[in-house]
Amino acid sequence: MKKTWVQIEGHIASPLGFRAAGVQAGIKPGKKDMALIMSDPPCAAAGSYTTNRIQAAPVQLCRRLTPGNGLHAIIINSGNANACTGPQGLRDAQTMARLTAERLHLEPDSVLVCSTGTIGQPLPMDCIANGIELAAECLAETGGPDAAAAIMTTDTRPKQVALQIVVDGKTVTLSGMAKGSGMINPAMATLLAFLTTDAAIEPVALQDCLTTAVEHSFNRISVDGDQSTNDTVLCLANGRAGNAPLTPIHPDWKIFRAAVNEAAGQLARLIVKDGEGANKLVTLTVKGAPGRRAASRVARAVANSLLVKTSWFGADPNWGRVICAVGYAGVPVKPELIDIFYDGVPAVKQGQSTGLAPDVLRGIILKPEFTIDIDLHLGQSSYTLLTCDCSDRYVSINAAYMT
Amino acid sequence: MKKTWVQIEGHIASPLGFRAAGVQAGIKPGKKDMALIMSDPPCAAAGSYTTNRIQAAPVQLCRRLTPGNGLHAIIINSGNANACTGPQGLRDAQTMARLTAERLHLEPDSVLVCSTGTIGQPLPMDCIANGIELAAECLAETGGPDAAAAIMTTDTRPKQVALQIVVDGKTVTLSGMAKGSGMINPAMATLLAFLTTDAAIEPVALQDCLTTAVEHSFNRISVDGDQSTNDTVLCLANGRAGNAPLTPIHPDWKIFRAAVNEAAGQLARLIVKDGEGANKLVTLTVKGAPGRRAASRVARAVANSLLVKTSWFGADPNWGRVICAVGYAGVPVKPELIDIFYDGVPAVKQGQSTGLAPDVLRGIILKPEFTIDIDLHLGQSSYTLLTCDCSDRYVSINAAYMT
Repeated sequence: MKKTWVQIEGHIASPLGFRAAGVQAGIKPGKKDMALIMSDPPCAAAGSYTTNRIQAAPVQLCRRLTPGNGLHAIIINSGNANACTGPQGLRDAQTMARLTAERLHLEPDSVLVCSTGTIGQPLPMDCIANGIELAAECLAETGGPDAAAAIMTTDTRPKQVALQIVVDGKTVTLSGMAKGSGMINPAMATLLAFLTTDAAIEPVALQDCLTTAVEHSFNRISVDGDQSTNDTVLCLANGRAGNAPLTPIHPDWKIFRAAVNEAAGQLARLIVKDGEGANKLVTLTVKGAPGRRAASRVARAVANSLLVKTSWFGADPNWGRVICAVGYAGVPVKPELIDIFYDGVPAVKQGQSTGLAPDVLRGIILKPEFTIDIDLHLGQSSYTLLTCDCSDRYVSINAAYMT
Repeated sequence: MKKTWVQIEGHIASPLGFRAAGVQAGIKPGKKDMALIMSDPPCAAAGSYTTNRIQAAPVQLCRRLTPGNGLHAIIINSGNANACTGPQGLRDAQTMARLTAERLHLEPDSVLVCSTGTIGQPLPMDCIANGIELAAECLAETGGPDAAAAIMTTDTRPKQVALQIVVDGKTVTLSGMAKGSGMINPAMATLLAFLTTDAAIEPVALQDCLTTAVEHSFNRISVDGDQSTNDTVLCLANGRAGNAPLTPIHPDWKIFRAAVNEAAGQLARLIVKDGEGANKLVTLTVKGAPGRRAASRVARAVANSLLVKTSWFGADPNWGRVICAVGYAGVPVKPELIDIFYDGVPAVKQGQSTGLAPDVLRGIILKPEFTIDIDLHLGQSSYTLLTCDCSDRYVSINAAYMT
């Protein structure tokens, strides 16, 4: 497909009418830990959320408000997930929305809330109140980078994207930022990500765009197979660009969809590349599956196998661990049909080694990015995942996270 | 239940009529890599095998012969799994049996074959032939410890057990040895393990005993969530003790079953304790589940969560990661009902922190062995798993395994 967007230097507050801030509220001593995104015009909003049965309080709050109209702001804290915090947690999330609304002269129901961090501890509401005050003071059209820094947890770098497209002859800007480098598994929005745009679009159409984009981006990445209680992707669209509202029959609908897909895809890729302790980006495709669900199961079994991930880290050309994971994925594969390719080079044909020299395979696995294609030769369905290796740094990061 | 067995110092060749050997065949330079178990009287044999769709050649061979009568020997190599080796692999496994049979003046169909090691490489048949010759020469009633050493791969220590019971007034010895410290996940025999006994028992009754014992031992452990192509548990019973053949109506049937369960349980525990890079043995029980399958799913999600396992390694009292894994196990849990106990101490009640001081929890997680009980309060079913932490050593072991 023709590239219909232009990549620009930008951040979450680049679309017209948006401001942002990132501040130190004192939840994580010495670090930025609260972010605020604000649109002066009211926004259409869409959301995509974790499928974990344990849903953090802010997820419950956001679910109620999206898709919807009249939204103005998103208040976000890192350092505390406000998950498994019971009725008090829900009250605290509501208070976060209310305090933000009061400070910005908005209705409480026009404020979305996200939290990320440790599970099971009460939100430190004095820090939160202080952070909201500070963030409101700091709101600026140039505040995106601070906001992107403030939502980081174990991320080693902020993750931002900005694109421009033309809709109805008007320039439309679409920006995004995301956090997340552990607890990343493909099955619904597995992280915090935010998209803003000055396009005009109805909530239902925006939700449709977002759902599709999430399915092909954030749901197709895997760092460690864990799935968080707080994962949320939110999108605000304020219409300031002045286009006629986008719907599926708008002539530029496909251009807008493509831009949302692209922005989500870029953020998803940044997340895998910044996976906790990750050194390699692996694009894993399962094809020839009897159905998409089967293809996805096999891809996830391989991508989540610790033995596979550690062998990538060690640049060990051990395709045996890959085919072993294929075998236990719960799909009735036929071993004698399976082909496996590394960067297109056949390592396994009909379930057996092609006799490829281990050094050739090792040369591929030593690269910072490579592809693995697994052909089951059982049908027409395929599934692609972005994943990464697992290094000793993953273990040290996660052994030390909380304390 | 009353303890009906006596633990003895012993090994796989301790039961009457058995001999064993462990030798260097040259598959793994400088290390013992082939083992042989031989019974002079013909044996009843039972087997339990991996559920991986990719089944190594020796697994295919053994499946055909168990349960069965007239078995005499098991020939085992480490260093090469003879998996994903196609028709040649199956011929090689048959040749292993035939060479062993010829050397010991047996029928080829009286020899079982097991392999463990790297997947996808042809078995080095000259080493194998050489090893069979050496092992046959070295067969001895004292050869069990050598055999236990020869089947090790990344194991740091050999794993052996020996018990005695009384059946019909006769002393019956039951011995076992096992290997396995990675690719360990609960779902069928997930390792190599061998049991020998001088009890007289019919194959079908022996298979019944073995299946039950495996279900409650080797199927209830998890090191890394991977499931091998070669996992096999075999049991040989040669009748030399002179008891009347054991069947479910034999008065000492329960005593024999209990001994098989105990031996399998002890080996399973040794495997988890020697898990690759493991420092802690965690007994994880899920109770109050709506069914056994649901209980098992939740237990496996927690036991296989990298975030949970690394937090145990770091002695991080992070029950949030435990409840998060409960939430994504695919079971419709009710967050507000979940209780979590560490060594019996409540950390979570009704989905929220009990306010237990983190130092108390940390004190428990610092111990080399502790229990975690998760009560879903949804039903009457429960499931217990033995599992371990995941350390940076796991990663370094598995990054370096093949090359």
